[in-house]
Amino acid sequence: MTPIIAELSRKVLAGDRAGIARAISVVENDHPGALDLLRTLYPHTGRAYRVGVTGPPGAGKSTISNKIARHYRIEGKTVGIVAVDPTSPFTGGALLGDRVRMTDVELDTGVFIRSMASRGSLGGLSRKAKEAADILDASGMEIILFETVGVGQSELDIVRAADTTVVVLVPESGDSIQAMKAGLMEIADFFIVNKSDRAGAEQAVMAIRTVLNFKQQGEEWRPEVLQAVASEGKGIAEIAATIGAHRKYLTTGDRLVRKRAGHLAERIREMVAERLHVEFWTDSRRLLLDRMLGDLTARKESPYDIVERLLKEGGA
Amino acid sequence: MTPIIAELSRKVLAGDRAGIARAISVVENDHPGALDLLRTLYPHTGRAYRVGVTGPPGAGKSTISNKIARHYRIEGKTVGIVAVDPTSPFTGGALLGDRVRMTDVELDTGVFIRSMASRGSLGGLSRKAKEAADILDASGMEIILFETVGVGQSELDIVRAADTTVVVLVPESGDSIQAMKAGLMEIADFFIVNKSDRAGAEQAVMAIRTVLNFKQQGEEWRPEVLQAVASEGKGIAEIAATIGAHRKYLTTGDRLVRKRAGHLAERIREMVAERLHVEFWTDSRRLLLDRMLGDLTARKESPYDIVERLLKEGGA
Repeated sequence: MTPIIAELSRKVLAGDRAGIARAISVVENDHPGALDLLRTLYPHTGRAYRVGVTGPPGAGKSTISNKIARHYRIEGKTVGIVAVDPTSPFTGGALLGDRVRMTDVELDTGVFIRSMASRGSLGGLSRKAKEAADILDASGMEIILFETVGVGQSELDIVRAADTTVVVLVPESGDSIQAMKAGLMEIADFFIVNKSDRAGAEQAVMAIRTVLNFKQQGEEWRPEVLQAVASEGKGIAEIAATIGAHRKYLTTGDRLVRKRAGHLAERIREMVAERLHVEFWTDSRRLLLDRMLGDLTARKESPYDIVERLLKEGGA
Repeated sequence: MTPIIAELSRKVLAGDRAGIARAISVVENDHPGALDLLRTLYPHTGRAYRVGVTGPPGAGKSTISNKIARHYRIEGKTVGIVAVDPTSPFTGGALLGDRVRMTDVELDTGVFIRSMASRGSLGGLSRKAKEAADILDASGMEIILFETVGVGQSELDIVRAADTTVVVLVPESGDSIQAMKAGLMEIADFFIVNKSDRAGAEQAVMAIRTVLNFKQQGEEWRPEVLQAVASEGKGIAEIAATIGAHRKYLTTGDRLVRKRAGHLAERIREMVAERLHVEFWTDSRRLLLDRMLGDLTARKESPYDIVERLLKEGGA
């Protein structure tokens, strides 16, 4: 380990904000020292409680994350937010004028917000978001919120790694309720129908409950459906209470330990896949593929045969 | 190759509907004969023109696919639809009463619609959707429409494999326009603001054009923004004309050939990743990981060290 990385890990463990920011950048940019840093910090992780907030674009996930963070701050807890959401004001809004808002939560030193870009190479993003959470965890943050848009596998992989996962919908989310069948339903520990001052809130709650009753028979933890108007702070205390109830449920017996073991196994599978990819695609294999593309498009060779050849090729 | 697979590939090449359906099932279920089937059919692919239709849930992608299919049928062309969309009436609506609709398009023997589930193991879904398209292509279908929900990497991987990719939005899609920055913007050959009889349609068109002008300077093909009310058939002829214009653009010079070569390279990378995963996770490596989980959660071992050990392990 280089002295710079050793110093950086000391800063993270001391809760130094500039150090935390730098450490996350090291991970995000796949800096050569990232592995040493994470390996050093790993024994100091596991204390933070991780909450995933997901849902379709426009459901108000950032507002909810923001308000929950504030709620925890009033309870005296420190909060880290990892936002991986193209529609979030934290991550992406600037292009269309929806600029990053410096809210009171963001100016509070007990809150650390980090946004990670989801555009471009999504490869490794899920891993990096979890590693950013490990850094925040090791720095002593007590609650970590993951905020991601809830459609698509890579994004769901991130919230799936949380202890408690909250799916945020809006009254108009008839389509989103449909979309739940693509994965949101399976991962939600509870639901929030946000913007519940709008028409159709009660019907949306009933529609979700109907799907839940249809699906979740025999489960010990029964996902609730809460209503909220997060922009006005309505429903935030109930959301925090439900996160608390789910946390209490998980910490009864070995549920949380088993859940986290499953998450770690999944992270290892992700890391292995990335490593196998990098090690496989040597210059010689890339060249071989390039040379075969003409025959492929001319249908002289099939992609299936080329895959076999690449797998047999030494790759030296 | 087994006689059954040989017979199946003959049926596909003859355009036999039951054979096509069966062949796609063989691919979808990873039947042992899938590779032989695809290898046999591959030389007969490449004739169909592939169009990807994507966008957020509720944008009306299925309706547009349906109407475009009908438009092509009137022109005498055969059409295959591969729908991978949890919100599509083709794939998923049944649970909440939005049952599969047997429309006139679906009853037409010149149209073959196949829905593929996106829930559960998304692994391989992108590959399988493209392989289903190959089967339809080999069977003689002249146009293939991919319909997928347009948020998330796996789903975008599918439409990215099309010759022309259309992104469908609605006037209320302020959030969706934001979401475009996550990937829709990069893949769209043109945009449709569907349900343009609703308020805000003009503003949505302008907002998209603003982002386009900001992003796409110097491109030869300039993505247009069309308006449509697909449920009433409004704008469908313009959509088909724009697909035609883009096709013409691509077939000038070697643009289409180069684009398809890129798609094939990407498919090969996907197949390799899947094969590496299957070959890596031998029983002995699975057992090793299982045995280490206790030490992992107790922070006695880091996931980074376990990855190294797994990579070094013979896996026998």
